Amino acid sequence: MSKLLEQGKKAKEVSRTIAQLSSNEKNKGLTSAADNLIKRMDEIVKANKTDLENAKAQGISGALLDRLTLDEERIEAMVEGIREIVKLDDPVGEVSSMKKRPNGLVVGEKRVALGVVGIIYEARPNVTADAFALCLKTGNTTILRGGKEAIKTNMKIIEIIGEGLENAGIPKEAVQLVEDTSRETSIEMMKMNDYLDVLIPRGGKGLITSVITNSTVPVIETGEGNCHIYIDKTADIAKAIDIVVNAKVQRPGVCNAVETLLVHEDIANDILPELVKKLQSLRVTIKGDDKVKAITPKIESADESDWSREYLDYILAIKIVEDIDQAIKHIATYGTGHSEAIVTESYSNGQKFLDHVDSAAVYVNASTRFTDGSEFGFGAEIGISTQKLHARGPMGLRDLTTSKYIIYGDGQIRK
Amino acid sequence: MSKLLEQGKKAKEVSRTIAQLSSNEKNKGLTSAADNLIKRMDEIVKANKTDLENAKAQGISGALLDRLTLDEERIEAMVEGIREIVKLDDPVGEVSSMKKRPNGLVVGEKRVALGVVGIIYEARPNVTADAFALCLKTGNTTILRGGKEAIKTNMKIIEIIGEGLENAGIPKEAVQLVEDTSRETSIEMMKMNDYLDVLIPRGGKGLITSVITNSTVPVIETGEGNCHIYIDKTADIAKAIDIVVNAKVQRPGVCNAVETLLVHEDIANDILPELVKKLQSLRVTIKGDDKVKAITPKIESADESDWSREYLDYILAIKIVEDIDQAIKHIATYGTGHSEAIVTESYSNGQKFLDHVDSAAVYVNASTRFTDGSEFGFGAEIGISTQKLHARGPMGLRDLTTSKYIIYGDGQIRK
Repeated sequence: MSKLLEQGKKAKEVSRTIAQLSSNEKNKGLTSAADNLIKRMDEIVKANKTDLENAKAQGISGALLDRLTLDEERIEAMVEGIREIVKLDDPVGEVSSMKKRPNGLVVGEKRVALGVVGIIYEARPNVTADAFALCLKTGNTTILRGGKEAIKTNMKIIEIIGEGLENAGIPKEAVQLVEDTSRETSIEMMKMNDYLDVLIPRGGKGLITSVITNSTVPVIETGEGNCHIYIDKTADIAKAIDIVVNAKVQRPGVCNAVETLLVHEDIANDILPELVKKLQSLRVTIKGDDKVKAITPKIESADESDWSREYLDYILAIKIVEDIDQAIKHIATYGTGHSEAIVTESYSNGQKFLDHVDSAAVYVNASTRFTDGSEFGFGAEIGISTQKLHARGPMGLRDLTTSKYIIYGDGQIRK
Repeated sequence: MSKLLEQGKKAKEVSRTIAQLSSNEKNKGLTSAADNLIKRMDEIVKANKTDLENAKAQGISGALLDRLTLDEERIEAMVEGIREIVKLDDPVGEVSSMKKRPNGLVVGEKRVALGVVGIIYEARPNVTADAFALCLKTGNTTILRGGKEAIKTNMKIIEIIGEGLENAGIPKEAVQLVEDTSRETSIEMMKMNDYLDVLIPRGGKGLITSVITNSTVPVIETGEGNCHIYIDKTADIAKAIDIVVNAKVQRPGVCNAVETLLVHEDIANDILPELVKKLQSLRVTIKGDDKVKAITPKIESADESDWSREYLDYILAIKIVEDIDQAIKHIATYGTGHSEAIVTESYSNGQKFLDHVDSAAVYVNASTRFTDGSEFGFGAEIGISTQKLHARGPMGLRDLTTSKYIIYGDGQIRK
């Protein structure tokens, strides 16, 4: 039996205990782990330095190196994240409906832990603590497989969390790290149906595609955001400019930033010159179709491939459309089902957009940047689902649970 | 582009229309399809005769041939099933929560169709009409891939349903049949992520395993039931006997029938002689461990493999356990997470069993045979999920839908 299968078997065993912990016990474990991370912070920084040196030796630099870095300030923020999760309501144990059937059976639907959750992610060591905390809070046992660049840091974090858990009387195997970061072991994990109930990839498109292609374990897809804003004929121009600028510039590197702007042809002349000028002054490269270029010539040309791009950068594609139907069709053709917004003063067009756009989050007169667990009031977020099963949109604690039917009888048999 | 991919593309296009149909329009379509199935019943019977002849020529007989058969009575029952679905509430469009955030954004969660649902099933032609009706009722577009033995019957049913839909003004591509029943095309369907939102296998273990192994499209697993009943020390003996006999004998070939009985050692002598005698009188073969044989010698020996078997037949494995903990552990080791029951008069043990047994349906003092959409009050059922994502246990209409967030703003941007 491979090391990974042993970890899986152990996780499955321990999961029966973890799923039954009370909210108080789980919070005590989380607090103890948080305290221990602060207490042994120096060791994390030291392990992280080793990872950083190895990464530099391999020529890694820039944003990747930054993501890998865990200094004291970041560790404190990471621990603060755990303490925030302690404060949230525990969804486990809630019975959402309880009905008496004609034969006297009482059928209830109770929220319970998923069991063993696998998480595959990249070289962001703060995900290690965050994913652990979200999963333990919901009664789940976790197997983490982080990026190889962060392996020393992750091993240290898990060691410290494990000690913290044991201090609180919780088995340290509530969270285990896959130390062999080879591709083969990663694939083995994706097929570990006997021991994993769910697999959640957190990372870029390549990672997510690999998990979807290879996994036989049920996956929650957290995905790409090729997000759109459509400026309707009746839009309030000032609102439209504010919303587009915010959705593009406030944080361009995230999945809920806007990538393509669709503008109704009747309002294009009134809005585009000012909007393009403003975006360009904020370092945004504009790519437009011929109709856009006719209005604002100092931009680049967009081609067919631009409509499918998730730039994650200071780049915006703009297209002029004839009407709302063409906008909805464009989104259906090129969108990834993440977040889309309409800017309009028309009641009918707002409703139509909400009804007909098939995305996880559909907005009227607001920035797409709000697609986020905290902004929606969930307190914490394990990711944003762009698939349709189980969870769609920002996933909070509830989405890390499942339900089971509990049935109270008095000797009933089926006729 | 293959025929299947063309069907997929068409389904995706049409799905935008189907998802927007009102309940009245969908019910009109279902009723029109039902009426047309009755009107053209002779053609179905004729097509079915061809399938039956081909099947017989290939040496198919017995239960398989029976499942393939569609006579007038069965067609009427199938159509009655569609009319029952017409009467159910449509889950689509319900907004389950609508909250105002501190910044004034109003965030609602709305129930919507999944989109395009693929269903892969075996040689039961009545599934064709049933799956279509459940999917259309929930605003979904459907691609059906039935067993090759039923192909002529299925083609005829889909042709007749399509005509019925068109008579009601609904595009006939709301439901399409994969006519090429080769394994290659089936695998192609399992990887059709661009056009399918969900894939649901309905059938035996082999089919389900194949779909889980090969599919990159999200799957809802409808699965095996190795169901258990545990007779606690404090059980009411009369209730226990009724429940076990019902769960084994009332319909042994279905997934919620009991397969293994666990008996507390302190009550075994009091219950087993009578229970075993009664079961044997009803043609049930009993397989027991050594302790059971010591009490009721006239039974077969159970070995390790029996604890994992889903007999789907007049066979029951019996094991004597020391206490409820051993029973719970046995179920965790060998169960498939479908349905388990405890028979007990102890409050604590009833609660403990409900809490600690990790199955889709957990019963106190009732037969496992109640795990069923109709029995739980859902009106209709697309299958029984034994996985933990999206849906667990009997799946009603609601489980054929997803949600999306709809957000009403007034120009909000993110700070």
